[in-house]
Amino acid sequence: MTAQKDSSKAAPGRTIISIDAMGGDEGPATVVAGLSRAAHKLHDIGFILHGPREELEKLVAKRRNLAGICEIRDAQDVVTMEDKPSHVMRNGKNTSMWSALESVRNGEATVCVSCGNTGALMLLSVVRLRKLDGVYRPAIAVLWPSRNPQGFNVMLDGGADIRADAKDLMQYALMGISYARNGFGLKRPRVGLLNVGTEEHKGRAELKEAHDLISANARRADFEFVGFVEGKDLPGDRCDVIVTDGFTGNVALKTGEGTANLIGELLRKAFRHTIWSRMASLLAYTSMRRLKERIDPRRVNGGVFLGLNGTVVKSHGAADATGVSAAVKLAYQLSQSGFSEKLAARVASAAMLSDEDENESEAS
Amino acid sequence: MTAQKDSSKAAPGRTIISIDAMGGDEGPATVVAGLSRAAHKLHDIGFILHGPREELEKLVAKRRNLAGICEIRDAQDVVTMEDKPSHVMRNGKNTSMWSALESVRNGEATVCVSCGNTGALMLLSVVRLRKLDGVYRPAIAVLWPSRNPQGFNVMLDGGADIRADAKDLMQYALMGISYARNGFGLKRPRVGLLNVGTEEHKGRAELKEAHDLISANARRADFEFVGFVEGKDLPGDRCDVIVTDGFTGNVALKTGEGTANLIGELLRKAFRHTIWSRMASLLAYTSMRRLKERIDPRRVNGGVFLGLNGTVVKSHGAADATGVSAAVKLAYQLSQSGFSEKLAARVASAAMLSDEDENESEAS
Repeated sequence: MTAQKDSSKAAPGRTIISIDAMGGDEGPATVVAGLSRAAHKLHDIGFILHGPREELEKLVAKRRNLAGICEIRDAQDVVTMEDKPSHVMRNGKNTSMWSALESVRNGEATVCVSCGNTGALMLLSVVRLRKLDGVYRPAIAVLWPSRNPQGFNVMLDGGADIRADAKDLMQYALMGISYARNGFGLKRPRVGLLNVGTEEHKGRAELKEAHDLISANARRADFEFVGFVEGKDLPGDRCDVIVTDGFTGNVALKTGEGTANLIGELLRKAFRHTIWSRMASLLAYTSMRRLKERIDPRRVNGGVFLGLNGTVVKSHGAADATGVSAAVKLAYQLSQSGFSEKLAARVASAAMLSDEDENESEAS
Repeated sequence: MTAQKDSSKAAPGRTIISIDAMGGDEGPATVVAGLSRAAHKLHDIGFILHGPREELEKLVAKRRNLAGICEIRDAQDVVTMEDKPSHVMRNGKNTSMWSALESVRNGEATVCVSCGNTGALMLLSVVRLRKLDGVYRPAIAVLWPSRNPQGFNVMLDGGADIRADAKDLMQYALMGISYARNGFGLKRPRVGLLNVGTEEHKGRAELKEAHDLISANARRADFEFVGFVEGKDLPGDRCDVIVTDGFTGNVALKTGEGTANLIGELLRKAFRHTIWSRMASLLAYTSMRRLKERIDPRRVNGGVFLGLNGTVVKSHGAADATGVSAAVKLAYQLSQSGFSEKLAARVASAAMLSDEDENESEAS
């Protein structure tokens, strides 16, 4: 598959990203503003933009730097945040979300970006793009602000599937490593397995089994396995990739977001409390803005669906132009690096390793 | 049991709390300082203090307000943070932790406070105090800083047991309500069940079952059940008591703490960044200190073991005198309100309800 360098009618020789213009809380104007912002930085990017043609044509016409690099595909229906995934699956053929995935399915793009309904996007992605050969369960990888030099960690699964057995967790590790390498240039990512303590005797049975499986793969593939990690390591620097089931991952993710939001709120109140603290807030403005950017969910909001034939970047439903632009840049980076193919190769090689294991144990 | 008003050799007519002086990171001097601080506010409190007599006598003698209200029980051994719970169980008879629990076991106190090794404390507590009649699994209840008027929420289980089925979760709800009422005076606590979404069709099978069980009990007992809640509701105001299994609870707890610590660290860096932000940090000093107190883990650090014959307050291992004092005040409040007896009554009445249910369904 060479779609990322393929020519499209609108943008020959460019890295093409498929964009769902609808379904985000802020509407298509915000999405188009985000594309324009991304295109200012990425000079060989191109878009296939899915949604109601008339509305999108007007919005795109207002952005001069999108001229000639943004092809519009008409799709009149919209998936709302309230739509049940199964309903969208049955009745969503004319939605922008469906259409955006179709461009990945038919090879016009290797990565799709949507701000829409996560459940519907996940179900449509799995059904339309299908799982990669050898993948047991696809996963959502999310970014956590952290103490690591890169400024964040990768956690998966963030909520694609509430279940995960030992083999699933091992694959999450492999997919997470591939993502950290190709999306962020980490050469030898360190992987941790989320548990209630770091001692090897702790935790559920499937975690002990997953520990051994990941450990066995680490020796042969090229990554470091740091063993069990705890909730505090999600924003920490003990590892770069943290593996867990989608139930635990989703609770942890929302707990972290909720905690950060509460502290932000209390901080704003503290600054308004006295005349002195109001003056302080003026003086500290630049430093505070820098801090806010560092932990801003809009900048780390690209949840990415892994394990499918093609990659889907789920941007936050409430993403503004900055958020959309960040998601598009991530999509571009993944497309450029040939991520989908590399992830497929990694999963395939692990499958071969596990066949070898079986042969070895048969022989012994 | 009337131990909380019982006379003790050292302190007749006082509310007696049993204290493990050893095992915390800061040593017995910090624990004794915490007791002294608590005794300044609580004039009818008394202590049975467990640890090496000579060392403790010197420390207590330095605090004038502890004279006559602090009986020392000699225990020469100490449980370290590295000791395995099973090792302590077999060889720990002469430790201060064991001795402190013994005072609850024999009715001299109804509540015990320790800063020591959580795993060992939990195992010793379960084995020595034994589960309350009708309780399936004891749980650790922890406090979360939150948007609620009381300033925090109660979450359980924080990590006593990595498993929990529907009946366990239902009991956690009952125990959490009793704790919120007697520890903090919340008249009609609202209970939520932690899940990956608020829709009733989401999540694991045991959660759907627990949803129905809790819902059935809410109608008859006097509490409000708000249904499924998400990670972001832990610091939120949708409910006061949040129920989950000990694996998820422990990960969420450590994730929340880790996130708060990272933000605190980044905030300090932001304030040091420029001359303006340094001036700002001086101006905002009082407001910032107020914020810090609000989310300070030392003030909300009383993890409490529920479901045993007697109550055990686990203070943070790194607690300073403020932290110890906060844990002692919580222990006093629980002892005063006759919490152990009320929790036992609540669990017993729920057991009766469920027998009635069985009779009803037999009759119908």
